Amino acid sequence: MSQTTPLPRQAAPSGRRELPEAPFLAAARGERPARTPVWFMRQAGRSLPEYRALREGVPMLDACFDPEMLAEITLQPVRRHGVDAAILFSDIVVPLKAAGVDIDIVPGTGPVAAAPVRDLAAVKALPELEPEQVSKVADGIRLLVERLGETPLIGFAGAPFTLASYLIEGGPSRNHEHTKALMHSEPELWHQLAGRLADVALTFLRAQLDAGVDAVQLFDSWAGALSERDYREFVLPHSAKVLAGVADHGVPRIHFGVGTGELLAAMRDAGADVVGVDWRIPLDEAVRRLGHSGRAPEKIAVQGNLDPALLHASWPVLEAEVRRIVEEGKAADGHVFNLGHGVLPGVDPDVLTRVVGLVHEL
Amino acid sequence: MSQTTPLPRQAAPSGRRELPEAPFLAAARGERPARTPVWFMRQAGRSLPEYRALREGVPMLDACFDPEMLAEITLQPVRRHGVDAAILFSDIVVPLKAAGVDIDIVPGTGPVAAAPVRDLAAVKALPELEPEQVSKVADGIRLLVERLGETPLIGFAGAPFTLASYLIEGGPSRNHEHTKALMHSEPELWHQLAGRLADVALTFLRAQLDAGVDAVQLFDSWAGALSERDYREFVLPHSAKVLAGVADHGVPRIHFGVGTGELLAAMRDAGADVVGVDWRIPLDEAVRRLGHSGRAPEKIAVQGNLDPALLHASWPVLEAEVRRIVEEGKAADGHVFNLGHGVLPGVDPDVLTRVVGLVHEL
Repeated sequence: MSQTTPLPRQAAPSGRRELPEAPFLAAARGERPARTPVWFMRQAGRSLPEYRALREGVPMLDACFDPEMLAEITLQPVRRHGVDAAILFSDIVVPLKAAGVDIDIVPGTGPVAAAPVRDLAAVKALPELEPEQVSKVADGIRLLVERLGETPLIGFAGAPFTLASYLIEGGPSRNHEHTKALMHSEPELWHQLAGRLADVALTFLRAQLDAGVDAVQLFDSWAGALSERDYREFVLPHSAKVLAGVADHGVPRIHFGVGTGELLAAMRDAGADVVGVDWRIPLDEAVRRLGHSGRAPEKIAVQGNLDPALLHASWPVLEAEVRRIVEEGKAADGHVFNLGHGVLPGVDPDVLTRVVGLVHEL
Repeated sequence: MSQTTPLPRQAAPSGRRELPEAPFLAAARGERPARTPVWFMRQAGRSLPEYRALREGVPMLDACFDPEMLAEITLQPVRRHGVDAAILFSDIVVPLKAAGVDIDIVPGTGPVAAAPVRDLAAVKALPELEPEQVSKVADGIRLLVERLGETPLIGFAGAPFTLASYLIEGGPSRNHEHTKALMHSEPELWHQLAGRLADVALTFLRAQLDAGVDAVQLFDSWAGALSERDYREFVLPHSAKVLAGVADHGVPRIHFGVGTGELLAAMRDAGADVVGVDWRIPLDEAVRRLGHSGRAPEKIAVQGNLDPALLHASWPVLEAEVRRIVEEGKAADGHVFNLGHGVLPGVDPDVLTRVVGLVHEL
């Protein structure tokens, strides 16, 4: 499917299940379902006591490769909150780990790579991902498709820039200085690395799609650290390769990064059907900016954009924010309610449940 | 001086020295001096070996209250790089510490407050700052004015929102969730706290001005975490109080935060004469946005906006970036070349010196 063809109403290649009544899928296609669908980034995880109980003593990456555990963790927020979509419990570094990269998730720090990737030898040494290496994730997805009923399942992968930053910096970075320096000073090496990481992300997403996910989200967590000029030159082609590479599956492709107000049209140009927006700009302004993308005649679908910090505010404040966002979301052809970034660890899960109820009422 | 009156060409109340030839002051007034002035945020500090030698074994806050040491640290980058302005070596929490708040700078973490400020009792217990409590800083400034010759000295303070975030969260925070929750849920308490912190910042800046600084910069490091709506409602009035409170000194007032592309006009509306811009948008686009402020007929001066990460790139890359930025800065009436955020610790100081030389040539 080319980037300029709208998604078919019910694409179901390779025996994919059809969920014609799912509000999430309708909104992601740029339609207006009977109710506004809602899910939360990081809904599966540390905000839930049942998650913390299940994960007790189990390292993060072990949980991500245990089909029963990843299925159960993915299901927990669906059961508890009644959200309109499940998001696969996984981590951005899962496909790298699966391919054999020496990387681990250090509690309190994040992903840490044993050896930073900063030269041609290191780039060439990066292994490719084979679909069999993520077979446990696929097994978990098959369990989920059986157990989720009519609730769609969103698969996900980290985008090339964000993966590259972890590998080049060797871990989480506030300033991405080595990544940006390499990108600008050695553009050929950069494009080779980002191209390989695009292949990894694509293989991971295709494995998820083959196992049955109903939509995909490409997370470019750190893209907001770049100017639009740099994003278009160094990042967009590689994210576009990933998004184009899953187009034949005919499922909605969501693309999100934090602080990307300047990049929204570029992220849509990369091939996103739904663009995630953080809380820094209102959704109606986001829709205006998305209209400047080269895909302007197509329907515009957005996802967002409640500030997750406001889940700590009083209910009247939160209610007013949710109402405002649902109202502003009407500027889009389709609106999937979500946070502007992931659920924070300290949040009261009952507040999330209440937000779901309110969004469904409006 | 009201916000709508342009700065006089040579304001010199209270015996302030006049520096009619200083390119930095001319550019900050919205003029075009013979050469583009340049300085770097965090130029005084950890990027310099002579700084690390001097600070050896001396805690950060001790250095900030030692007149000889703060003067020497402030002078080091002026001597080494030939920058067009000195920036007072200090820290955002210095006036809080001076007033008696139990706060310290923990190496590797940042400012940590012994007791988070989250209720009325804690807000009421916050001490006021008396000018005598920062007399050591004033002593250092007097030494600097003697030693700097024709190079202007920029004083600085943290803005109320950023100070509040440290106090409410108890330390550095990625998400500012308690700050945002308090702001929205208890707006009266928020405004009381922010008002008190505005008084602290104002007293600190006035003490610096009385001692002889030639310009001031109000740092609202974290303001970019807010939407424009929230910034205008909760933050702008307090930053405006600080900036208006120093207007009678007739020196340029710079205002800066990271990731504030959406807030530039609002920050100008707060009373800034010069608005700092990070690297996410080009300076000519920043000038366009600043034109939407309520102070549109006045001259527009900007400061910025080289990505500090690119100081790690190869010289040809860096040279091209510097040339582009100087070119884009011509859209403003006045342009002070700077980074889009502070100097990173690992940078080669010779690269900074070379950037100064290049900016001066162009």
